Amino acid sequence: MSAFKPRDPDWENKVRTSFARQTVMETIGARIASLRPGFCEIELPYRRDLCQQHGFLHAGITTTIADSAAGYAAFSLMPPDASVLTVEFKVNLMAPAAGDRFLARGNVIKAGRTLTVVEAEVIAEQGGERKPVAQMLATMMCLEGKADVPERG
Amino acid sequence: MSAFKPRDPDWENKVRTSFARQTVMETIGARIASLRPGFCEIELPYRRDLCQQHGFLHAGITTTIADSAAGYAAFSLMPPDASVLTVEFKVNLMAPAAGDRFLARGNVIKAGRTLTVVEAEVIAEQGGERKPVAQMLATMMCLEGKADVPERG
Amino acid sequence: MSAFKPRDPDWENKVRTSFARQTVMETIGARIASLRPGFCEIELPYRRDLCQQHGFLHAGITTTIADSAAGYAAFSLMPPDASVLTVEFKVNLMAPAAGDRFLARGNVIKAGRTLTVVEAEVIAEQGGERKPVAQMLATMMCLEGKADVPERG
Amino acid sequence: MSAFKPRDPDWENKVRTSFARQTVMETIGARIASLRPGFCEIELPYRRDLCQQHGFLHAGITTTIADSAAGYAAFSLMPPDASVLTVEFKVNLMAPAAGDRFLARGNVIKAGRTLTVVEAEVIAEQGGERKPVAQMLATMMCLEGKADVPERG
Repeated sequence: MSAFKPRDPDWENKVRTSFARQTVMETIGARIASLRPGFCEIELPYRRDLCQQHGFLHAGITTTIADSAAGYAAFSLMPPDASVLTVEFKVNLMAPAAGDRFLARGNVIKAGRTLTVVEAEVIAEQGGERKPVAQMLATMMCLEGKADVPERG
Repeated sequence: MSAFKPRDPDWENKVRTSFARQTVMETIGARIASLRPGFCEIELPYRRDLCQQHGFLHAGITTTIADSAAGYAAFSLMPPDASVLTVEFKVNLMAPAAGDRFLARGNVIKAGRTLTVVEAEVIAEQGGERKPVAQMLATMMCLEGKADVPERG
Repeated sequence: MSAFKPRDPDWENKVRTSFARQTVMETIGARIASLRPGFCEIELPYRRDLCQQHGFLHAGITTTIADSAAGYAAFSLMPPDASVLTVEFKVNLMAPAAGDRFLARGNVIKAGRTLTVVEAEVIAEQGGERKPVAQMLATMMCLEGKADVPERG
Repeated sequence: MSAFKPRDPDWENKVRTSFARQTVMETIGARIASLRPGFCEIELPYRRDLCQQHGFLHAGITTTIADSAAGYAAFSLMPPDASVLTVEFKVNLMAPAAGDRFLARGNVIKAGRTLTVVEAEVIAEQGGERKPVAQMLATMMCLEGKADVPERG
């Protein structure tokens, strides 16, 4: 899992620049907590205005950070001049998303030329306790010849 | 699809009250557009601050409205004193979520005593055009003896 | 759903020839029941030796016919000199697969250049009754420049 | 993952007896290779009559062993007098299922009272090499008060 070799020497800067352009991340208050080739961790503090009817984080918000963690884990391994696209994901909600802080961790399990398969888990932290709340299995696509972040002139 | 008979005469009020408690819906600007037993449609106008890196609606936000549409379609058929819980969903992102307005439509395809299977599609509107952008297949769970919206005293 | 225009004039022959090469179909006793551009129906009579522990059709066999129905629905729309590959699928088992005969019906919902999204349902027939037992949402891939059925010299 | 404590002292016998009743396993030539609480491994030698059009194991057969591995991993943790039922699964086919032998390994990741979430991977062996070919994320249901294997009088 940790033996991935990035094909783009500038992978980290590329991922961070693309993440910074995801306006929804600022809107919900999420940030990149950790980054390695084939791995991305996103952190989201709990906010009362991101919830479902019982005061837990809405499954769609849990999915938002899991999808970006999965997507950037995949993107970190893609060549220069490529974009990443989510083809599909499946998410199991294993426990109510209750906690002070949530961590979504995307791990590439198969990096293909066109398609990359990624697992992501979302963990809730409350006090010193950590508990998995969601599990994702996702397919990401590499669009070559179409840089994710346009050059600025 | 339209022959569902609600088991709770107060189903519509129950769904609307529960939806109103989903704080994330107000945060992103979504509202219920249409409601029938076994069906729920949620509308979300495009907002630049809910996007991924290319300016399209983030897949997690698309999922947020699809999940609530699916969940409330299921909840509309549940008995009184029951809560709805998302067990899992799978989403195919079929096209970039570009548009002025998005409609998520949840349709129950199998209502069981404990588990309900729901399909949801998300459609983008741009000018007069409509285009499907996402397809969801989800499992919802009925928690009996645990009213979704607590009584107020 | 019915407005699909095949890109290969020989699509029907191509699908039938490829299906005939799926040895598992003969092993389990499945055959193509119906075929249109973007649609494929596969029929499987019940057999006691294809079951899980309670005497119902095993979910993996239900999936086998659903996957082929979905794959050939997608393949019917692909250009000449292309192969079809299953990227992933998700299946909800909605009722025990009890019946005399099972019908898997694949319907393309989005045909893209590289990826095609397909829905499939599996229906059980018992006496005159029909009941949906499984629902699939799948992603199929088109491999261009790699004919599915090799020429014979 | 390995700290699961079975609630039924007879769990191993129960799992093996139930597996023996899955007629499809004998039909395709699969057997249990390894069993622990929360874990089940199923082995399937390659057979030419279980293939898709290119001579690889059909995705439905890959799924058949993955589903049983996942189901019995879950069942091993269920109380006496309970049955296991597959609610749904999602499978990513990561590489062509080419090999002499296939191993499906189910691992429980969350055991709940009613629902259990299980991951399963399918590995292909060829010569001394092992390669992952499929990844499953599944939901299993516990039906209490309904023994999986009927008593014999």
